[in-house]
Amino acid sequence: MTSTEPRTVVIVGGVAGGMSAAARLRRLDEHAQIVIFERGPEVSYANCGLPYYVGGVIADRESLLLQTPVSLRSRFGLDVRVRHDVVRIDTAQKLVEVVDLETGHHLVQRYDALVLATGARPRRDEPASDIPTRSLRTVEDADAIDVALSRAGIPVVVVGGGYTGLEAVENLVARGASVTLVQRGPQLLAPLDTEMAAPIAAEIRAHGVDVRLGVEVVRAGSGSVTLSDGAIVPAELVVDASGVVPETSLAADAGILLGETGGIRVDASCRTSAPDVYAVGDGVEKLDLVGGDAALITMAGLANRHGRMVADLIAGRAESARPALGTGIVRVFGIVAAKTGWSERQLRSAGREFYVVHVHPGSHAGYYPGAETLSMKMLADPDSDAILGVQIVGRDGVDKRIDVVATAMQAGIPAAELAHLELAYAPQFGSAKDAVNILGYVAENTRTGTTPTVQWHELEAARRAGATLIDVRAPSEFAAGAIPGAINMPLDEIRDRLGELPGGPIVVHCQVGLRGHIATRLLRQRGVDARNLDGGYRTWSDGVQGRD
Amino acid sequence: MTSTEPRTVVIVGGVAGGMSAAARLRRLDEHAQIVIFERGPEVSYANCGLPYYVGGVIADRESLLLQTPVSLRSRFGLDVRVRHDVVRIDTAQKLVEVVDLETGHHLVQRYDALVLATGARPRRDEPASDIPTRSLRTVEDADAIDVALSRAGIPVVVVGGGYTGLEAVENLVARGASVTLVQRGPQLLAPLDTEMAAPIAAEIRAHGVDVRLGVEVVRAGSGSVTLSDGAIVPAELVVDASGVVPETSLAADAGILLGETGGIRVDASCRTSAPDVYAVGDGVEKLDLVGGDAALITMAGLANRHGRMVADLIAGRAESARPALGTGIVRVFGIVAAKTGWSERQLRSAGREFYVVHVHPGSHAGYYPGAETLSMKMLADPDSDAILGVQIVGRDGVDKRIDVVATAMQAGIPAAELAHLELAYAPQFGSAKDAVNILGYVAENTRTGTTPTVQWHELEAARRAGATLIDVRAPSEFAAGAIPGAINMPLDEIRDRLGELPGGPIVVHCQVGLRGHIATRLLRQRGVDARNLDGGYRTWSDGVQGRD
Repeated sequence: MTSTEPRTVVIVGGVAGGMSAAARLRRLDEHAQIVIFERGPEVSYANCGLPYYVGGVIADRESLLLQTPVSLRSRFGLDVRVRHDVVRIDTAQKLVEVVDLETGHHLVQRYDALVLATGARPRRDEPASDIPTRSLRTVEDADAIDVALSRAGIPVVVVGGGYTGLEAVENLVARGASVTLVQRGPQLLAPLDTEMAAPIAAEIRAHGVDVRLGVEVVRAGSGSVTLSDGAIVPAELVVDASGVVPETSLAADAGILLGETGGIRVDASCRTSAPDVYAVGDGVEKLDLVGGDAALITMAGLANRHGRMVADLIAGRAESARPALGTGIVRVFGIVAAKTGWSERQLRSAGREFYVVHVHPGSHAGYYPGAETLSMKMLADPDSDAILGVQIVGRDGVDKRIDVVATAMQAGIPAAELAHLELAYAPQFGSAKDAVNILGYVAENTRTGTTPTVQWHELEAARRAGATLIDVRAPSEFAAGAIPGAINMPLDEIRDRLGELPGGPIVVHCQVGLRGHIATRLLRQRGVDARNLDGGYRTWSDGVQGRD
Repeated sequence: MTSTEPRTVVIVGGVAGGMSAAARLRRLDEHAQIVIFERGPEVSYANCGLPYYVGGVIADRESLLLQTPVSLRSRFGLDVRVRHDVVRIDTAQKLVEVVDLETGHHLVQRYDALVLATGARPRRDEPASDIPTRSLRTVEDADAIDVALSRAGIPVVVVGGGYTGLEAVENLVARGASVTLVQRGPQLLAPLDTEMAAPIAAEIRAHGVDVRLGVEVVRAGSGSVTLSDGAIVPAELVVDASGVVPETSLAADAGILLGETGGIRVDASCRTSAPDVYAVGDGVEKLDLVGGDAALITMAGLANRHGRMVADLIAGRAESARPALGTGIVRVFGIVAAKTGWSERQLRSAGREFYVVHVHPGSHAGYYPGAETLSMKMLADPDSDAILGVQIVGRDGVDKRIDVVATAMQAGIPAAELAHLELAYAPQFGSAKDAVNILGYVAENTRTGTTPTVQWHELEAARRAGATLIDVRAPSEFAAGAIPGAINMPLDEIRDRLGELPGGPIVVHCQVGLRGHIATRLLRQRGVDARNLDGGYRTWSDGVQGRD
């Protein structure tokens, strides 16, 4: 037994980051007094599971509640107070003032260390109305939506086509609702680029969802919403997934500094500007690995990890957060989209130099049944070859590949080095040259100029500048759908038909880029100014579909 | 068009490594004369698919044949000669002597560069007999086994419980054969440690396979084989999967140096001791990342990658092979086993220092249906924290986790850093703290002494030295099966029952290690000499089952 006075650690917010901090701290300090104040009625619930509870995929409401105040007291000796709202921090006196929402009583709690895990709140884009409107952030939200859906076939408008919005759509459809998805931006999943996001919208539409892009809800009430393009859409329930903003008022009122992003500013060890006050989770800025400065990256994994790290710090262990990548994934119906790092749009808007590769390898060996085509896009630095971002869309094996490239990126492995990763191969799981290896090979061919490429959105300009487009696919593929104006010359015939090629620059393309690469190499070695359409017909058609 | 004399590149062996070299070389050098000699009747076939063709999973024989001599000529301008056996190399004159196996004619081919991709041949442990005996290395093997299985229910003995042996077992069972698996060693999958391999044997036995460990076939004939323990097992077909040895006679006869492992010795760029002679694939030594010296690591991915690299070298590009990890994976029935780097057995036999962690996290979030428990073992260097090896066994998500740790290992990420990897989280795919993160956290707790551990095979010695074993699981779990002599004291009651603990050292355990970790931390902070049974009851029972 120690004889020193036990310290008091107060944690505001009892979900991901706060609860990770509390449990880890207890394992490191059996004697600390650990008090958690949570405004809501539950702690430690699985908020990423809420859409699936609404959809009935998670049948048992209890399974969302990972811990309760009672279980946390008996296992970890934690003092958990739900329905307690921290209304004021006195950073000089190291006190918090708390309102018991059940009784209205005020209480004051002293702290030696304070952890703010106040999270984020819905941005709420849509106008106030008499239509029930709910976010999908708390168990109460899920319960309310569940009740509203008890009548089958009701029209629901989902506002926001990000991760949560897409998960909401799938689960509302599963419950038999008639769903309209309203997205302010020109595409779904803003973290992806146009050509990568296009298949998501197609998948959702194929499941009967009315997807409205580039519009907002401007009026709502009496069973319908009016969109900014004048369209009127029936709605008896609105699910707000338009995004979140950091919940910072408590910190700001206490004089704790916020960053330019609007999140609480912290150092690499999640220390705020006030002594012994830490902050973690969606309310806090993260150091962005690609940008090198502060950014709002709201991911449950970061909240959990940083919460645990803060416990280590409070217990006297030196630790610091790693720069964040913003790795994310979502499945909607049969399609999966994932990203890590920055998109082309982000890089372009920041004026960063980059090169691009698109590949479409199989999820596993083509000779083994069930292989699905992956669409992968990588952005890398043309000088250092540092990986700046990767996006993957597909049906199987997306999660594995994004995790491998995120690990590579975090480790500082250059893009071309992906070719050399020794990944596990059996025909059910991959290929002797895995999809990630292919990404590395194509990166190297692109960056070194072995096979110069043209991007899908550069094709028109290249042709206006005089380039001829040669489609090297088989005649049957050409006949099934081709880029207007392309000339078909199958790869295996090119050596015999060189004389038919017009003078001047050539852009070749195939279905996914591989045969185009072979043709480009063949032609360039024979003195032809040839480039390959990166990602082939597939990337081009996704891009055109996404732009239209 | 270039005016220099085109070089002649001869490749011996037309499957993985040889064909990768040929195709890449053509993309880099449109004018080279590229001649491939292949002893067998096919080139570029999917030998990793052969077991599944036998089992009928791959229905179409053609899909195994990725390329043919005709397609390789039209697409790549390759001169592919099947049924051509290279019988002699003259490294001084740069000639190979070749026998056309169809005609018996000899021919001589000059080379500027020579690539040996001669692969490996079956070791063939079993005695000669009148029972048809086949390996599973070529399409001809698969065809012969297919024919032998045309009569349902025939007894088949598979010799060898490695990757190929297990895949053969699954597919023979799928074809209705009555299968006995004979393994010379005391466990299946020798690259895994005892406690990791045990669930594989259990899975295979549960599918009706007669698994015989620690025995060899000593006699065979007249419809049965006799094992070294005297048992007689019916057999109308023997599938030899007892392993391979490098095919080196051609190289050795030409005076090309072999290494101590018996494989062809090459430098980091796959150059042999003879000028302009390269060698790749299963016949060649690799530089082992963990051991730091030459080893025989026979993986299709390495063969492909090194074949491509040699083409780059021949085309004048500087390249070198990365040290090999020996990443491998196999699925048999419902269970998947994977490894990268070294096992505990290998490290122990080499006298290397290491520490061990076992964890059993879920394949994805527990609140989302379908999560399966993974069994993960990591070995790391106690000084540098370098990852030395990882083994994973489970049903879902094994391939993803082995690829992530293989990437981390290749990148030189230390074990504890796995905790900080920012992997993609949605409830279908992982957890906010992914299984790989958990591995990193437990590694750190173990290496730093935060929670000292006892390994499953150290438990008996610890108890003989006076330790008391406390099972901190719930009474229902304890009643369902416990370690003999353990005292049940559920985790949530420990703080109130400290007085009941005996003096002296304590080993605590739970089901998988997490509650044991919490209990160990609690007790140690209260002055008790407590250690956690690493991996809990699950690892202990797997280990005991594997040892018995």
